[in-house]
Amino acid sequence: MIEDKLAELGIALPEAAAPVASYVPAVEAGGMLYISGQLPFVGGELITGKVGDNRSEADAIEAAKACGIMLLAQMKKALGSLDRVERIVKLGVFVASVPEFTGQPKIANGASDLMEAVFGEPGRHARSAVAVPVLPLDATVEIDAVVAVKG
Amino acid sequence: MIEDKLAELGIALPEAAAPVASYVPAVEAGGMLYISGQLPFVGGELITGKVGDNRSEADAIEAAKACGIMLLAQMKKALGSLDRVERIVKLGVFVASVPEFTGQPKIANGASDLMEAVFGEPGRHARSAVAVPVLPLDATVEIDAVVAVKG
Amino acid sequence: MIEDKLAELGIALPEAAAPVASYVPAVEAGGMLYISGQLPFVGGELITGKVGDNRSEADAIEAAKACGIMLLAQMKKALGSLDRVERIVKLGVFVASVPEFTGQPKIANGASDLMEAVFGEPGRHARSAVAVPVLPLDATVEIDAVVAVKG
Repeated sequence: MIEDKLAELGIALPEAAAPVASYVPAVEAGGMLYISGQLPFVGGELITGKVGDNRSEADAIEAAKACGIMLLAQMKKALGSLDRVERIVKLGVFVASVPEFTGQPKIANGASDLMEAVFGEPGRHARSAVAVPVLPLDATVEIDAVVAVKG
Repeated sequence: MIEDKLAELGIALPEAAAPVASYVPAVEAGGMLYISGQLPFVGGELITGKVGDNRSEADAIEAAKACGIMLLAQMKKALGSLDRVERIVKLGVFVASVPEFTGQPKIANGASDLMEAVFGEPGRHARSAVAVPVLPLDATVEIDAVVAVKG
Repeated sequence: MIEDKLAELGIALPEAAAPVASYVPAVEAGGMLYISGQLPFVGGELITGKVGDNRSEADAIEAAKACGIMLLAQMKKALGSLDRVERIVKLGVFVASVPEFTGQPKIANGASDLMEAVFGEPGRHARSAVAVPVLPLDATVEIDAVVAVKG
């Protein structure tokens, strides 16, 4: 049971965040769950700011993990149970960065390490990680996902 | 008939834009239609400039809607009829923004609201919306899409 | 045989690059291969810098081609043979750019032209091409891909 693994890791899933606009958090189609870009809420508060400016690398790694936890919350809500996850297929990671900061992969690991810790081998995924000049609501990280679902 | 809905909404589909480079507008594979990033043409003219600099939020919302209309034109061209659309699965929205502008979701709604107005419930989609420093040809918005197709 | 075509084009595939972080280069799911964002290595050295600043357009086009060659190397490693590629479905192209540079499609063609040269018609793909302020390790271009695989 993946829920047992979450408990073992000391991770409590938050309420799945409602979209900040007119779309839905996740769509299941063709055996895949497509999850909207998730923002980093910790204790209900958004982690904001740009890496290399007013936000540290350590904070940004935590932000990526928080996006990952919100992705888990959306999977659970959409699928009923995290045990229906067959494979984390792809994460798309956007890091709000000043133009001099080049450590996006290290930041993105905050989410990637989480997926492997929670799901084991099926948690290992393809990934792109890029910088953006700014994100919605001044968030530090945004991550979307494609997940293969058990039939 | 989705075409009737378009008429009711007063939307006339433009000629599906040709790629500005060596690729194709859309590829159907595995039951999904993958559509290339579309730029915002209105009356044949591209909406250009960055939000927060030389382009207003209201114009950018119109630009996002124009990208959405071009996505519809590409779906119709690729599938023969919009009635073959089973579900709008995912939109990827890129908004040319100054680093201080954080309202990308509001801009992206220009396209998201259109999809729901045209298709109803099957038009509700997953989405990511991020800022970029600039876009091809200085466009204000670029949007790509994944669409589930009826068998 | 696609390998013959590569030889004819004078392209030698490099060792498939290891991820720069905790994820995997490619995941096959639902008949598709999802490939992580690839960086432009030429002769083992990364092409770095931003277009419009310290990197020329011509160099950036070469960088996009180098990302494309690395995508081919990842396909071969994941699938065993490039002959298992049914269709290049989608490329996601990110170009490190100053905010005044608007020629991302021309840069991205470095990869798109390669795919058509190698695979012919099945190499023609959907694409998004956007600017980003900076990329991991200061790379000039990053490209990820979705590829349909023969059953």
